[in-house]
Amino acid sequence: MKILEERIRKDGVVKAGNVLKVDSFLNHQMDVELFNEMGREFKRLFADRPINKILTIEASGIGIACIVAQHFQVPVVFAKKTQSINIDGEVYTTKIESFTHKRVYDVIVSKKYIGPEDHILIIDDFLANGCAVQGLINLIRDAGATVEGVGIAIEKGQQAGGRMLRDQGIRVESLAIIDSMDDAAGEIVFRQN
Amino acid sequence: MKILEERIRKDGVVKAGNVLKVDSFLNHQMDVELFNEMGREFKRLFADRPINKILTIEASGIGIACIVAQHFQVPVVFAKKTQSINIDGEVYTTKIESFTHKRVYDVIVSKKYIGPEDHILIIDDFLANGCAVQGLINLIRDAGATVEGVGIAIEKGQQAGGRMLRDQGIRVESLAIIDSMDDAAGEIVFRQN
Repeated sequence: MKILEERIRKDGVVKAGNVLKVDSFLNHQMDVELFNEMGREFKRLFADRPINKILTIEASGIGIACIVAQHFQVPVVFAKKTQSINIDGEVYTTKIESFTHKRVYDVIVSKKYIGPEDHILIIDDFLANGCAVQGLINLIRDAGATVEGVGIAIEKGQQAGGRMLRDQGIRVESLAIIDSMDDAAGEIVFRQN
Repeated sequence: MKILEERIRKDGVVKAGNVLKVDSFLNHQMDVELFNEMGREFKRLFADRPINKILTIEASGIGIACIVAQHFQVPVVFAKKTQSINIDGEVYTTKIESFTHKRVYDVIVSKKYIGPEDHILIIDDFLANGCAVQGLINLIRDAGATVEGVGIAIEKGQQAGGRMLRDQGIRVESLAIIDSMDDAAGEIVFRQN
C-alpha cells in the first residue's frame, strides 16, 4: 500500500537490531486518517470473505482494528493479556511470547464473544515472528470459529512469521512488507507486489 | 445520551460490589457503530474547544478514542502502562492505581507526542474514582499542554472521581452517569440531565 510505505519512509526510524519505530503514527500516537485508508484497503482485499467479527490483541492493535471494523460493519473483540477480575465466566486462553517486552503473556478471550458461528479477520499492527497472530489463531480454533484471514499493517519480511502462517494455508495480507532495513543509512527496502 | 443508557440497560450486567459489566459492547467486544454515535455526541459537546489531540490510556480507552478522533479529525495518543523498550528518548511518567486490577501502574507518554502547543481532550471508557484521568491530567500538565476537557462513556456517579475533577474546574462530559445500581434486582438508575 503506497501511502503506508511512503509514511514509513518519511516518519519511521530504523534502529540497530532490526527495530523499526513507527510510534509517531501507528502505535503510540495514532493517525486515524491513515487507519481509515488501511481499513478501506483491507475491505478491498478481503471483500470475498464472509467476515462477521474482527479479533485483535491489546494494546496497539485495538485502534487499527476499530477503524478497520467500520469498513466491514462488524464488532471488534480484543484479546486481553492478563486475567482481569472484570471478565467472569469461562475464557479461551493461550500463551504468547513477546520479544519486544521479553516475557510470556497469558492471553484470554471470553467464550461469550467467539463461537462456532464466527468468521474472523485478525488485525494487528506488526507481524514479525508470528507469535501473537498464532496465539489468536489458536484461540479462534479452540472456539470452533473460522479464521478468514489476517490483516497486518507492517510485516517484517525477513522474519519467519509471514511464511509460517502462509504455509498453514492462512491468507495473510500485509499492507507493507519490509525485506530489509539498514540502520546506518536509514534505508528501508519494501517487497514489490 | 439516550442510546448509551438504553444499551447499558439492555446488555449491561450489574454484579455485587458495585460492578457493572459492559464487556459485550464497550471494553472486550466493541460496538464501533455505538462508538461512532458517541464520537458525534462528544464533538457536539466540545465543539467550542480548540482540540488538536486526544489522549487516552491503554487498553480499553483506545478503541473509543480512535473512533471519537475521526469526528475531531485529530490524532490519538495513548498512554502506556509499562515502559516498553520500543519507546526511546524521554517520557513523561506518572503512577496510576487500578482498583480493578489491584495494582499500581507506571504510565508513560513520549515527550515527542505532547507539548505546550497541544489542546487535549481526554477520552476513557469509565470514570469511577478518577485515578486514571487524574494521571493523564498530570502527564498533560507536565508537558505544559492544555486540558480542554474529559469525555467519558460511563461515569459511576456514586464514586468520587467526577466531583474531584469538576472541583478542579475540569470540564467533564459523561455520556451516561449511573447514580445507583441494585445487583439483586439488576436495576440501574441514571442521573437525569
